[in-house]
Amino acid sequence: MSGWIAIAGLGPGRETLVTPEVSQALAEASDVLGYIPYVARVAPREGLVLHASDNRVELQRATHALEMAAAGRRVVVVSSGDPGVFAMAAAVFEALEQGPPEWLSLDIRVLPGITAMLAASARAGAPLGHDFCAINLSDNLKPWALIERRLRLAAEADFAMAFYNPRSKARPEGFTRTLEVLREACGADRPILFARAVSTPEEHLRVTTLGEASPDMADMRTVVIVGSSRTRLIPREGAPILYTPRSAE
Amino acid sequence: MSGWIAIAGLGPGRETLVTPEVSQALAEASDVLGYIPYVARVAPREGLVLHASDNRVELQRATHALEMAAAGRRVVVVSSGDPGVFAMAAAVFEALEQGPPEWLSLDIRVLPGITAMLAASARAGAPLGHDFCAINLSDNLKPWALIERRLRLAAEADFAMAFYNPRSKARPEGFTRTLEVLREACGADRPILFARAVSTPEEHLRVTTLGEASPDMADMRTVVIVGSSRTRLIPREGAPILYTPRSAE
Repeated sequence: MSGWIAIAGLGPGRETLVTPEVSQALAEASDVLGYIPYVARVAPREGLVLHASDNRVELQRATHALEMAAAGRRVVVVSSGDPGVFAMAAAVFEALEQGPPEWLSLDIRVLPGITAMLAASARAGAPLGHDFCAINLSDNLKPWALIERRLRLAAEADFAMAFYNPRSKARPEGFTRTLEVLREACGADRPILFARAVSTPEEHLRVTTLGEASPDMADMRTVVIVGSSRTRLIPREGAPILYTPRSAE
Repeated sequence: MSGWIAIAGLGPGRETLVTPEVSQALAEASDVLGYIPYVARVAPREGLVLHASDNRVELQRATHALEMAAAGRRVVVVSSGDPGVFAMAAAVFEALEQGPPEWLSLDIRVLPGITAMLAASARAGAPLGHDFCAINLSDNLKPWALIERRLRLAAEADFAMAFYNPRSKARPEGFTRTLEVLREACGADRPILFARAVSTPEEHLRVTTLGEASPDMADMRTVVIVGSSRTRLIPREGAPILYTPRSAE
């Protein structure tokens, strides 16, 4: 087999945040697969086949990608952000485990990217500058009780927290409940950042408190960061700087 | 003031993991500051002053950088990995808060990079593919009791865990204790990844279990990842693939 598969992170949006390693893989690929808006970020060229698919079909997409690599194609599966953070890498390995044993000898690489929470953190200051956790709030793949348990334990551990997929039209009530749990566990004064579409022309950042936060401040293009008890605001003209000091005391 | 300051992430080591945004800032800089081995990664050129300093002087380095930017220099403070994850961004904002009010109007940007845990995760598969936390095990800046408390709560929340600065010659006992706490909380069979110097010529990855892990498997160039209860190994020729499925059940 001379085919290969790379699961590549396109970063949060701006082209200057795509690593040269990922650009190189895209330049060598015969096929690119991914969710429609991510494939739309890849420039078409002679000899490159673009396979855009809807979301919620990750496992089928992963299987298709592995089949093509096994057939000798040079395949890049694209994710936004980092493919290893709530993205396509895990789906490809799930498909690999379910597939024929010969897939195990495929040339498979994961190419990291700038994940949304770190792009958002950089834009706002350094809210993830000390211990933190990352939680996917989508309850497609896990029960709400587990999400709520993790929120409470993360607050007890005094982690800063980053939330992916905070809110969809199909299930707005989950994020409402998240804010209630966090207000109870962390207090109304705790800072919260809503960072939408970071590094794109639609970028919008809002820093507020849990007491002032409302569910409609997030949509599916928003990453949400809640500070730890140590997180500080530096007020200045324009947006304040939000950061968590290195020291825990 | 026409000076500016950028706090930039050089990624884990390989040049093809440096974002074009960071390369551009380095090309425009008049001064680059950082810990000695990170500044050594920046190519010298006419008109660029390199200021390499030891570690444990982060706050002095940050103050110096802000002073130079305020004096009109074009300053890049370099971190390895991502500057917002246990690195220089928080130190610069600490210095900013302690400095003169005119520094608040400085042009300050944080330029994200590929952080060590995500580079390590990509090399091993996708162990951080579901909810996870990141903990700095250095007890320079926080008491051991807080670290141990966070370890126990993270295990109870069933997060995958990434550990930075696991072990130094000056305080080897902390990581020994970390492994004991995790064995007790997660069981001896839980997979653990030791990823040293990822993406450099000295890269070395080892996947084992908490039961088989020993403190000497980590040094200060190692990032350590412990799986959640859902993390799986796919055995194959050469290194196994370590990944955490997207679904929690």
